[in-house]
Amino acid sequence: MDSTYLELKERLAKIHDLGQVEGLLGWDQQTKMPPNASDVRAAQIATVVGIQHEMFASDETGRLLDQLDSFANAQDPASDEARLIRVTQRDWERQRRVPNELASELAQASGEGYAAWHTARANSDFPSFLPYLERMIDLKRRYVECFPEVSEPWDALFEDYESGMTAAEVKTVFGRVQERLTPLMKLVAANPHAVDDSPLRGFFPADLQEKLSRRLLAHWGFNDEGWRLDPTAHPFASAAATTDVRLTTRYDEAYLGTSLFGSLHECGHGMYEAGVSPTLERSPLCHGVSLGLHESQSRMWENLVGRSRAYWKFAYPTLIEEFPEQFKGLDEEAVYRAANKIAPSFIRVEADEASYTLHIIIRFELELAIFRGELQAAELENAWNAKYKEYLGIEVPDAATGVLQDVHWSLGLMGYFPCYALGNVLSCQIWDRMQTDLGDLDAKVGAGEFAPLQDWLREHLWRHGRKFSPKETILLAAGAPLNPEPYLAYLTEKVTGLYGS
Amino acid sequence: MDSTYLELKERLAKIHDLGQVEGLLGWDQQTKMPPNASDVRAAQIATVVGIQHEMFASDETGRLLDQLDSFANAQDPASDEARLIRVTQRDWERQRRVPNELASELAQASGEGYAAWHTARANSDFPSFLPYLERMIDLKRRYVECFPEVSEPWDALFEDYESGMTAAEVKTVFGRVQERLTPLMKLVAANPHAVDDSPLRGFFPADLQEKLSRRLLAHWGFNDEGWRLDPTAHPFASAAATTDVRLTTRYDEAYLGTSLFGSLHECGHGMYEAGVSPTLERSPLCHGVSLGLHESQSRMWENLVGRSRAYWKFAYPTLIEEFPEQFKGLDEEAVYRAANKIAPSFIRVEADEASYTLHIIIRFELELAIFRGELQAAELENAWNAKYKEYLGIEVPDAATGVLQDVHWSLGLMGYFPCYALGNVLSCQIWDRMQTDLGDLDAKVGAGEFAPLQDWLREHLWRHGRKFSPKETILLAAGAPLNPEPYLAYLTEKVTGLYGS
Repeated sequence: MDSTYLELKERLAKIHDLGQVEGLLGWDQQTKMPPNASDVRAAQIATVVGIQHEMFASDETGRLLDQLDSFANAQDPASDEARLIRVTQRDWERQRRVPNELASELAQASGEGYAAWHTARANSDFPSFLPYLERMIDLKRRYVECFPEVSEPWDALFEDYESGMTAAEVKTVFGRVQERLTPLMKLVAANPHAVDDSPLRGFFPADLQEKLSRRLLAHWGFNDEGWRLDPTAHPFASAAATTDVRLTTRYDEAYLGTSLFGSLHECGHGMYEAGVSPTLERSPLCHGVSLGLHESQSRMWENLVGRSRAYWKFAYPTLIEEFPEQFKGLDEEAVYRAANKIAPSFIRVEADEASYTLHIIIRFELELAIFRGELQAAELENAWNAKYKEYLGIEVPDAATGVLQDVHWSLGLMGYFPCYALGNVLSCQIWDRMQTDLGDLDAKVGAGEFAPLQDWLREHLWRHGRKFSPKETILLAAGAPLNPEPYLAYLTEKVTGLYGS
Repeated sequence: MDSTYLELKERLAKIHDLGQVEGLLGWDQQTKMPPNASDVRAAQIATVVGIQHEMFASDETGRLLDQLDSFANAQDPASDEARLIRVTQRDWERQRRVPNELASELAQASGEGYAAWHTARANSDFPSFLPYLERMIDLKRRYVECFPEVSEPWDALFEDYESGMTAAEVKTVFGRVQERLTPLMKLVAANPHAVDDSPLRGFFPADLQEKLSRRLLAHWGFNDEGWRLDPTAHPFASAAATTDVRLTTRYDEAYLGTSLFGSLHECGHGMYEAGVSPTLERSPLCHGVSLGLHESQSRMWENLVGRSRAYWKFAYPTLIEEFPEQFKGLDEEAVYRAANKIAPSFIRVEADEASYTLHIIIRFELELAIFRGELQAAELENAWNAKYKEYLGIEVPDAATGVLQDVHWSLGLMGYFPCYALGNVLSCQIWDRMQTDLGDLDAKVGAGEFAPLQDWLREHLWRHGRKFSPKETILLAAGAPLNPEPYLAYLTEKVTGLYGS
């Protein structure tokens, strides 16, 4: 093997290690860290991110990449080697635009912003969070300025999560989805009590919820040798290695759905990270390729599997073993229906599949306006509440249930939310293609045979990691470019099935 | 403030951050990490340590130190500024001797060694651990070779934990201790049933043990805002910041003493780290100064406080609230006596105060022989067992109870064990001086008034961190150089009180 290539690979392995360590510091911060340490932790994260950025965006990395250009041309273009060099070239050129100092300030602001958000949400106090949000937006504006070729400022942020896609494309997809969503939501509004979600409401002790989640995840391969599950305020999945996948969930003792579907959702993310080819471990290719594709996996396992009739045929016995009293006199159809109740609500992470996209459209429009300079951070709470009134017809009662509900902006995750909705769209495209290859997926899910689905996804999506661009990867997995129709067909069938046509 | 000084301080803050991050990766590895990730984690730790070493031992650090020499001369020699420069000069000169590659290999071997030890101990299988131990000893030999001026090879390792002290000094102290210990142990052997530790044996559910530990630690200032307590195979304390102190303990459901005194012990370490002056946060001075002094704090709170009659007068009501059945018909004197049973045993961390030093002397002698080349790693299990037979009169039944019991060698902590025994010695010196200043300490402990002791220790020891050398710090805290007599007087009084004179 070319020694320059090995030198690059070793350098990138160390840089990747720092990224994984940063992720672990974040996981620890949200799940284990004593709160008094938040300032020092912010500084520690800033140090790691700063060094990582400095090492990666260095002249030395550029020199190695230059030297390897002809080596890369001589390789199979789809080889790990060629892809490592090409993807790194693109990443390097992008990072060279961002000064080390800015990267480091962003990391520091993220740590401090998270702590401020945590307190502000607990007190439902948007003004106490506002200075942190303003600082973050200001830093993100400086970030956007590093990419002056972008005509839509927000696109420079979106590029980090869904490379190659733009606000204009999102708008087109969201427009089409909203067009079909409106009559479906009217159907629901005309018949609001058609579905009863009371089976999932009552009293569900947190320790039993955890036990149930662990049992259900075990059917999908979750085990203590390579996975963790911890409680947190805002659920997420992270992976410090393909062999170290960490899911978090939130236990609401009055509503089982939060932890139940939250765990299934995060496990979908976890499977993608755990499924990246081991040959890519400790390389910059060792992650899911984009947030949209990542979300396609979490949504697929949460919704297409976890909220299907077939799944509850399989999982119902486990559910009633943990909660025999709570489900006395009910059956699997009752759980299926409860899992699929559609109703406008305040909290995105608890939203149903149909109205979910409206939550995302609100955030997307607010972010666009902020970065176009048409909206100030101080106006966000009012703007948020106005849009919830307009799009979902509901009055937000307080900031904790409104503008402070999501952790994202506190951490600097802006230009991120639309990927959640793209995940819904992509999950249905991939599901349809998998069904074409494997035959009746519901039959497999109903029999608890998840391995064929996992093998297919590993082959067509997971193992590739970041080897190919998001758009190339969509082609590999879905067989076609982004297309909302399978998702709309799925949603129409489900909603009309439950609420009448 | 001098801009070069600020530049050095910022550089050292980042380097310190990396050290704290390394500590956190280690904590996570031992308490939270899924075991499949051990190889990747070893690489991640090696990366962080390698970068830290490279940044610290760089020419750039040396240049800043050179430039600051006259600035340091112009400061109060006891100021944070002067001490930061002087301590860093000493650390830098020492680290310059160690090649980056070796530092990185040591970190990698530590991660992999820990994983191998963990499995080997579970299977009581020394041969499976031997290659890892041999690799570690080999790397440590290369480390020793970086300090050719040292005539006793082991001293080069010991210097990292108890700077300024030598094997020869340890031998003198150990010799004197052993001289006085021999008649005391004979006293115990003549009357082996004088003390009954059965009150601490029986069935103590782990969750209740944890609750008891948390309640007892809360009396000493442990709280969820700045501290953690987690279970682990080998208990330790670490601090990612003065505001982020993490204790671990082990729950043996058949013996309460392990977690009870283990928690008190680790809390002593934690108080020292939490008590370092906040002005030293994120600097290389923000740690306890030596292992011996660190251990003086853990042993003081475990033994001089935790195993005293006065403490049980205070703590007994808490104990019986958690374990009313287990202590039915007993009283605080029964717990005091049970906590102080003396009997030769296999496991160092469970050894009584008197025979503890014998466990340490065995390890000290074995390490000395290894690094003198008089003993091979492959001979360690037999040599270990022979010494336990000779010094403690007991036959080691298996490797898990013998040579594999301690995590230290797997992690590369060699030249470390004697500090535990020095901690006993120093704890009694400091205790006597504190008593001179504060009056009757037992009266305060018996009344649950721990704050005066903590204030005194913060003033005379904790707040200094690494500002002064270990020997200077011993003078500040104990008012005299290392001296085993207070420890021997304490031990003699306790043993004769329990076993007759």
